[in-house]
Amino acid sequence: MPQTPVTILPLSQIKERLKTADLIPLIESGFVAYSDKQAVVPPVGELIFEDPPGETHIKYGYIKEQKYAAVKIASGFYNNPKLGIKASQGVILLFSQQTGELRCVLLDEGLLTDIRTAIASMITLKYLAPKKVDKIGIIGTGIMAKLQLAYLHQVSDCKEIVVWGRTPKNVLAYQDYFKDSPYTVHIAKDIASLAAQCQVIVTTTFSKEALLQKAHIQRGTHITALGSDTAEKIELSPKILQMADIVVSDSLAQSQSRGEVFQARKANCLNTEKLVELGTLIKNPALGRQDADQITVADLTGVAVQDIMIATAIFDAVTQAK
Amino acid sequence: MPQTPVTILPLSQIKERLKTADLIPLIESGFVAYSDKQAVVPPVGELIFEDPPGETHIKYGYIKEQKYAAVKIASGFYNNPKLGIKASQGVILLFSQQTGELRCVLLDEGLLTDIRTAIASMITLKYLAPKKVDKIGIIGTGIMAKLQLAYLHQVSDCKEIVVWGRTPKNVLAYQDYFKDSPYTVHIAKDIASLAAQCQVIVTTTFSKEALLQKAHIQRGTHITALGSDTAEKIELSPKILQMADIVVSDSLAQSQSRGEVFQARKANCLNTEKLVELGTLIKNPALGRQDADQITVADLTGVAVQDIMIATAIFDAVTQAK
Repeated sequence: MPQTPVTILPLSQIKERLKTADLIPLIESGFVAYSDKQAVVPPVGELIFEDPPGETHIKYGYIKEQKYAAVKIASGFYNNPKLGIKASQGVILLFSQQTGELRCVLLDEGLLTDIRTAIASMITLKYLAPKKVDKIGIIGTGIMAKLQLAYLHQVSDCKEIVVWGRTPKNVLAYQDYFKDSPYTVHIAKDIASLAAQCQVIVTTTFSKEALLQKAHIQRGTHITALGSDTAEKIELSPKILQMADIVVSDSLAQSQSRGEVFQARKANCLNTEKLVELGTLIKNPALGRQDADQITVADLTGVAVQDIMIATAIFDAVTQAK
Repeated sequence: MPQTPVTILPLSQIKERLKTADLIPLIESGFVAYSDKQAVVPPVGELIFEDPPGETHIKYGYIKEQKYAAVKIASGFYNNPKLGIKASQGVILLFSQQTGELRCVLLDEGLLTDIRTAIASMITLKYLAPKKVDKIGIIGTGIMAKLQLAYLHQVSDCKEIVVWGRTPKNVLAYQDYFKDSPYTVHIAKDIASLAAQCQVIVTTTFSKEALLQKAHIQRGTHITALGSDTAEKIELSPKILQMADIVVSDSLAQSQSRGEVFQARKANCLNTEKLVELGTLIKNPALGRQDADQITVADLTGVAVQDIMIATAIFDAVTQAK
């Protein structure tokens, strides 16, 4: 029997297939499989580069009873934009769970990681945001900050956005980017002012110092933090997680060693009784927000099940289209 | 600046480039960089599959001052041959150390892993085999057993081979495979008889029980064990490592958790003073065999530096040929 040919999917073809994919239920089912222990997801592999600074994460695993195992290699090289190259880079590989043969190389240049992360953020808003939201705050102005608004309409009717970023030029560019969109983007003079106006806040930076502080946060706020995915990065003061009524993590296992939950634990600020895994919340939404006064936090470090689900959906769509 | 295009190398092109590659010095320099702490090689990633049984190893890292980081995904699905598919499968990816961009996908279907393992075996024979070798014993009859004879002439003049395998049909097929080669392949009736005739023994199986026992081994024998690369697999009785004068490991770090050295340590059979890392031996050959009477053992679990070196050499050759 000859080796099955490998399908190489260029970015253009991936983008085409993304247009018709219904990603929220897809990624939700991945999180549910993960929390139901139907997924095999070993610890994240990591390579650190010093000069220029960069990091590569390898996320991999499989969901039982599915066809493919996935290996995703995603990098962040933060000086790339100075060279006109995207900071985030990557590729996803799909292998047969039956034979180990490579089936598909998705040359997504990090796009699928960005999108599956934005979708996870939308899922957290779906289950945790308060009913009445006048304004949504976005901290950061990069690709992840932009992608929030690409998918927000699927989970919220709010069109008023407040943005804050470190670099005024980038904040103006962010506002300009959405000038013909359904969204009105207001610029906050500082984080305190952003938090005072918004009932939902999404943090999307590579920060290694807490940006949002406990004193900024009003009762009833929901915060999704998706920037920290290592042991060093942090966007939320651990005291925010201490104050929160509900803290949701996409992976309790990964939260032992990375992300906001890890930081709050390290600072002895987290009562783990209020900690819920995202897949568990999706299965049982009653574990989410109970009233308009609660403070809720979701911490996303990114789980291989998201990569497995999105890559498999793209490859299946291509195969079926043939 | 547009994204640099990714080079996809099919197996045929990889095979073409392998014909002219001088692999022994290449892989030796990778081992030396590794033992000199010039390589960043995190612990091996591992995925285990149950039905059908299979395992996937992810080996990755980079050598400082080089252009690329490598991620190698290699699988063993031991029921594949029943389907007419190779048990070992794989792919190697090269990424820029400067930007994290994917540069090259080597669709080697596991071939480069097989070859770099055979080359490592040759390197151990070069430094550890006794001067006078009448017969070389090969335990196992699969692809790794065959590849030994493809490269043996680079390090030894011996043409007399003794083979042993569990399955008589496969042993006959192995003998037949080399019928028009410079090698004469004799079939051993059992492992004891193989070990009694051979001054060099290479073990190449997936065994989970020790095959070679202490009582089998004559003074002056060198043994290279390349089958065990997990915590479960074992080919040599720990008592052989206890008896040996010199034990060489391709990676002292990996030997903490996999391979023959791990097994011997676990059985309290290893005096670590006689343990030498392969890259250290290559730099200082005086650490190798001192006389014809010594018993020496090399344990290969496979190190990412081998993958980095072989994949980079193939990609460079393709780039330069353009």
